[in-house]
Amino acid sequence: MREVAILGAGMTRFGELWDRSFREIGIEAGFQALVDAKLSSGDLGALYMGNMASGSLIDQEHIAPLILDYAGLAGHHLEAVRIEGGGASGALALHQGYLAVASGAHDFVVVGGAEKLTDVADTEANRIINSTADHEWEEVFGATLPALWAMMARRHMHDYGTTREALASVAVQAHEMGAKNPNAHYRNRLTLDQVLRATPVAEPLGMLDCAPLSDGAAAVVLGPLERARKFTDTPIRIVASQVACDTMALHHRRDLTTIDSTVVAAKRAFAQARRAPEDVGVAEVHDGFTISALLALEDLGFVPKGQSGPAFAAGQFALGQKLTVNPSGGLKAQGCPFGAVGVAQAVEVVRQLRGEAKERQAPATNLGLLHDVGGTGATSVVHLLERVN
Amino acid sequence: MREVAILGAGMTRFGELWDRSFREIGIEAGFQALVDAKLSSGDLGALYMGNMASGSLIDQEHIAPLILDYAGLAGHHLEAVRIEGGGASGALALHQGYLAVASGAHDFVVVGGAEKLTDVADTEANRIINSTADHEWEEVFGATLPALWAMMARRHMHDYGTTREALASVAVQAHEMGAKNPNAHYRNRLTLDQVLRATPVAEPLGMLDCAPLSDGAAAVVLGPLERARKFTDTPIRIVASQVACDTMALHHRRDLTTIDSTVVAAKRAFAQARRAPEDVGVAEVHDGFTISALLALEDLGFVPKGQSGPAFAAGQFALGQKLTVNPSGGLKAQGCPFGAVGVAQAVEVVRQLRGEAKERQAPATNLGLLHDVGGTGATSVVHLLERVN
Repeated sequence: MREVAILGAGMTRFGELWDRSFREIGIEAGFQALVDAKLSSGDLGALYMGNMASGSLIDQEHIAPLILDYAGLAGHHLEAVRIEGGGASGALALHQGYLAVASGAHDFVVVGGAEKLTDVADTEANRIINSTADHEWEEVFGATLPALWAMMARRHMHDYGTTREALASVAVQAHEMGAKNPNAHYRNRLTLDQVLRATPVAEPLGMLDCAPLSDGAAAVVLGPLERARKFTDTPIRIVASQVACDTMALHHRRDLTTIDSTVVAAKRAFAQARRAPEDVGVAEVHDGFTISALLALEDLGFVPKGQSGPAFAAGQFALGQKLTVNPSGGLKAQGCPFGAVGVAQAVEVVRQLRGEAKERQAPATNLGLLHDVGGTGATSVVHLLERVN
Repeated sequence: MREVAILGAGMTRFGELWDRSFREIGIEAGFQALVDAKLSSGDLGALYMGNMASGSLIDQEHIAPLILDYAGLAGHHLEAVRIEGGGASGALALHQGYLAVASGAHDFVVVGGAEKLTDVADTEANRIINSTADHEWEEVFGATLPALWAMMARRHMHDYGTTREALASVAVQAHEMGAKNPNAHYRNRLTLDQVLRATPVAEPLGMLDCAPLSDGAAAVVLGPLERARKFTDTPIRIVASQVACDTMALHHRRDLTTIDSTVVAAKRAFAQARRAPEDVGVAEVHDGFTISALLALEDLGFVPKGQSGPAFAAGQFALGQKLTVNPSGGLKAQGCPFGAVGVAQAVEVVRQLRGEAKERQAPATNLGLLHDVGGTGATSVVHLLERVN
């Protein structure tokens, strides 16, 4: 397979974008990425769009050619494909784009992710989000996505003594970073006390332990590494791209506090890249709920099993540490437009590796990790990105 | 890129499968394909699932890991991805599976397609199907999918003198083949008169010019050609796999009677395979409406522009001719479970090339074509399959 590089990256602001439509945010992110890559649209071979639920959310399936069309590119008759895997849709689209370039099927492709969650009522959006868990065995019995993650949190507290405060510290750090990120949905700082006293959603998780419903879009341009220097002085090489799946329903898992799909995807990714967790300097991990980030840090191999709570609460993953986690603010503060999340993670890590992240710039590193999850972990996707010097 | 072969094929009956759920039909097709390929599930690397609208139809997104899970394969932690492009979802999944094997990312993958359309009311299913056209510029103004295809039919009649009877002859031949296909939704023969006198849907198209709403699933197993002989005496090589897109809305096309995405995908496919339309002995083409098949035959290069009507009405594409079109009965008679269609086309052509199609066996040929369309042609996918002797 050919080596693949990210040549450009772009994204919209995340938030309640009531003044802009799905197709408008989709093309805004795509054009930013093309401009950043200094690539002409005539060079493109394909578009891979990550999107969770446009059919239910905006009455529109078939959104990949729609975005091409509204970008003015219909006349090129490119390949355009929508990729879906719940909240992991964006990262899966990145994986498919990677395969398209690696295989030689296309030279230059755009990978996009977009979701418009706030055009329907919150109750309806939540119903749709729950459809990424097992509808017949979970949702119909009232187990919502927050309730399922709350069960994982309870079990982690029971098995490892993880404290409510450790969970809350994830939200505090996320908002600290969001305050430094002009694209973030939430730019307000939070105190531990505010998180602890927030309205309960599914105990132990409160309102401020949960990522918001956001609108937003993100895009990256991929191409063969051997041609990357023509477009950029700082190509970012995709050194690993791995997907792993697990049971849909939580009750079938061997352990409620381990997401095996993440464990397996991470092992495969580090093996593909011939690198180890300790080589990673910046990581964007799935924090749809505060517990999600703690599980991710253990499952990715950044901290031993059961020790993520104290480590996080002690600031071990804050900006400036050996490993900075979620400098974007993550799903919690940057926002959670499902299909866009995995691509936005790539945008953030590209900017970090290039040294363009300004106020939220992590210490210099040449290896970044992206971790995106669908549902309660039925899908996990792990990418490793490396700055080529 | 490595050469890719189809090693096994399977499908459920298409129809109103009220006694079986989405997940049940998905795994039935997959197991059939695995058994046909004589492959153990332990050899698999990935599952690509084509599906149009499970979120709206059965309240379930994230269906690729769901099918893996219910097939008992969650413990292998395979990669599983859903692919969507309206009615072309199944063929797009085949394309992604092809890239995964061609690139070397995986050795053996299952490509599945499934849709459950009859669990909701017909009016609701039709609303959902319309979401594969441009929601904001077509559907909200009342232009349904049948109405849009009817406009193309009217224009073809106006420009080329195509007769109402020629359109109807497509339905008559489809049901003639469906009668020979135990998996077909419709197994009754039709007379030209019955088609002409059926209830109007969107003139000139009547009820019997339109494919039905079906449930169903289909699957194929792909692997590297160099290892195919271990599994089968008759590997079927994928000699071309091409996707092209066009505008979502019909009013932006340069010509209402030509689907440029099909023209471009076909040209690329014949170039990739170094073959020509006259080499093809059997073809499964998109006949969601009778006019769809006529346009396809022209756009794929099987008949000069404007001459598909008389050619079809004269029986030029019937069983036993130099080119047999839609021996399965097509979308019209075999049925139209959207996300399953493109994969079912592959199943039929595999059986035809192997000489296993019994009553509906076309004359011996070593080259078959698959043509799948999303919406009104915003996506077209063309595959060429070759029997390796």
